[in-house]
Amino acid sequence: MAVYTHVDPDDLAALVARYDIGTVLSCKGIAEGVENSNFLLETTGGRFILTLYEKRVRESDLPFFVDLLDHLAGRGCPVPAMIRDRKGAAIQQISGRAACIIQFLPGISLTKPTGSQCEAAGAALGAMHRAVADFAGERENSMGHRHWREVAQATGDLDVVIPGLQAIVDAELAFLDARWPTTLPAHVIHADLFPDNVLMLGDEVTGLIDFYFAATDFRAYDVAVTHASWAFSADGNRCDAARAKALMRGYAHEITLTDAEVSALPLLARGAALRFLLTRAHDWVHTPADALVTRKDPAPFLNRLRRYQADDAASLFVAA
Amino acid sequence: MAVYTHVDPDDLAALVARYDIGTVLSCKGIAEGVENSNFLLETTGGRFILTLYEKRVRESDLPFFVDLLDHLAGRGCPVPAMIRDRKGAAIQQISGRAACIIQFLPGISLTKPTGSQCEAAGAALGAMHRAVADFAGERENSMGHRHWREVAQATGDLDVVIPGLQAIVDAELAFLDARWPTTLPAHVIHADLFPDNVLMLGDEVTGLIDFYFAATDFRAYDVAVTHASWAFSADGNRCDAARAKALMRGYAHEITLTDAEVSALPLLARGAALRFLLTRAHDWVHTPADALVTRKDPAPFLNRLRRYQADDAASLFVAA
Repeated sequence: MAVYTHVDPDDLAALVARYDIGTVLSCKGIAEGVENSNFLLETTGGRFILTLYEKRVRESDLPFFVDLLDHLAGRGCPVPAMIRDRKGAAIQQISGRAACIIQFLPGISLTKPTGSQCEAAGAALGAMHRAVADFAGERENSMGHRHWREVAQATGDLDVVIPGLQAIVDAELAFLDARWPTTLPAHVIHADLFPDNVLMLGDEVTGLIDFYFAATDFRAYDVAVTHASWAFSADGNRCDAARAKALMRGYAHEITLTDAEVSALPLLARGAALRFLLTRAHDWVHTPADALVTRKDPAPFLNRLRRYQADDAASLFVAA
Repeated sequence: MAVYTHVDPDDLAALVARYDIGTVLSCKGIAEGVENSNFLLETTGGRFILTLYEKRVRESDLPFFVDLLDHLAGRGCPVPAMIRDRKGAAIQQISGRAACIIQFLPGISLTKPTGSQCEAAGAALGAMHRAVADFAGERENSMGHRHWREVAQATGDLDVVIPGLQAIVDAELAFLDARWPTTLPAHVIHADLFPDNVLMLGDEVTGLIDFYFAATDFRAYDVAVTHASWAFSADGNRCDAARAKALMRGYAHEITLTDAEVSALPLLARGAALRFLLTRAHDWVHTPADALVTRKDPAPFLNRLRRYQADDAASLFVAA
C-alpha cells in the first residue's frame, strides 16, 4: 500500500526500451497492492502497471504468478496480462527488485457493493475457477489452514489485541484442526478476493487483481473468503442476506458446488474469518501504531467468526 | 506522499457528475504531493489528478492557489489547470476534505538532471517569474526567513539530529538576520521547485507542479532554492558547476537579475539551505523512525549550507 522503492527515470527508460510499448510519458507511484511497489506507467503505447516485488513476494514464486495470469487471460478472465519484452521475458530487474510490466485494467474497487455487484463478483469468481481448473501450476498456500497456528504464535499474546482473543483462537484452532476437510475439490485459488481486488464499472467486473496470495487450496475455501469479505457490514457484525445470496447465486451461474462442499462452507468460512483475524492481529502487533500505513482492525473478522460459528450459519450460503 | 483519506466510489461518481468530464473509469491513489491525498482519476473525458487537501494546506489558502494556477496557465506556463465544474467552482468537498480536480500533465521527475535539463528548468522558472509578475494575489511565506527561528525552536535540541548542529544554526540565524535583504524584487514564487516538482520529457519541461508552498517572497530566493535543489550531488557535498551554470543560463534567457539580486544570491542560498535543513530536521525529530513515510535526511542541506558559506560562493551563480 505504498511505494517502497524509487525508480530512476533513466533505469525506467532502459527497462521500457526492452518492450514494444513506446517511450515513457509518465510514471506515478500508486497506493495499491499487497506489499509491492506499484507505478502507473504511461507510455506512447498505452497505460500499464509497473510492479516491483518487495520482500513479501518471493522472486521464486513469480514464474507461477506469470503463468497463472497468462492462463487466466488466455481463457478470457479479466485479469491483467503480464506484458512480455521483445525476447519474451515477463520478469525483469530494476532498482534491485524483480519487476513486471502489467496490463492496466479500468474499473474501481467498491466499498459498498450492491446485490447485483455481489452477483457479478460471485460469477467472476466462478468463471475464474472454471478457467483455472486445468491450470498445471501449483503453489503451497502459505496462508492456509496448516499455517494459522504459526501466525497465532508469531503474534504473541492475542489478548493484547482484543481481551479474551487468545482463548477464542485456541478453541477455534482446535475445532478446525479436528474437522478441516481433506478431500474437497482443489486447484489454484485467488485466496484474497476482497472488494479491493475486484475492479468494477457499474455492475460489470472489469478486473480481478492482486493474485499474490494465489495458491492451491479448496475452491470452496475461496468462496468462503469471498463471502466473508463481500457479504458483511464493515464492522463484521451483520451478514447482509441479500448480498450473500447474490454472491452465491452469481457463483452458481458458473460452478455447481458438490454436496460435500456446500456442507463444508460454514466451517471453511470460520477458517477464512480466522485467517484474516490472525493475520490482521499479527500486523496490528507488528505495525507501529504511528506508522503511516493503516493497520487493519482485526475485530471485524472476530465478529464474522462469531457469525459463522452460529448454528444457522449454513443459511448464509444459500443462493436463493 | 501517501493517501491519507479514502474516497468512496459513490461519492466520487457524484463529484465527477458535477463536471463536464464524463464518468469515472479508474481512480488510483498516487504517492505524490506534499501532504495531500492525490488520486490519478481517469474518466471517459480524460485523465486528471484529484487532490484532497489534508491538514498542512489551509482551506482558506485554496482560492489563492486556484487563482495562481489559473493566472500561470493563462500565460502559457506548463502548470496544471484547476478544472471547473459546470457552475464554475474549482474547490469541492469530498470525504470531509476540500478537493480539486486538476489537469493531468505528462512527464516524469528527474533524479539526475543533465546540464541541458537544468537549463530547461532554469528557463521554466524564469518564464514562470515573468508570468507571475502581474499576478495580484499575495500570500505570506510561512516557510520564509522570518519563520526559521520558530522552526528551529519547535524542533528542540538540534544536536540530537546532527551533533554540533545547534551552534551552527544559531550562528547562521544571527548571520542571516543581520543581513537579510529587504528591498529585492518580490512577487509570488514557487519556493519549492525541487526536481520532484518539475515534470520533464527529455529536455522539455512539461509541468511545474505542487505550488502549495507558493508565497510572496524575493524572486532571487526562488532562484536560490532551485539552485540548491538542482545543482548539487545527492549528499550535498558537491556543487556541480556545469549544472549550476546551465540552471543560471536558462534562467537568464527569461530574466535579467539586478546587480543587487546577483550580489545577494549566495546569502539567499544560505537561507534556502537553512530552510530545508531546518524543516527536514523538524520532520526528522517529529516523524517516528519506524513510520513508512521516508524521512528526508537533513545532512545534505547542512553540506549545501557549508558550500554556500564559502568565500567563493558567488562563483556558483555565474551563468557562463
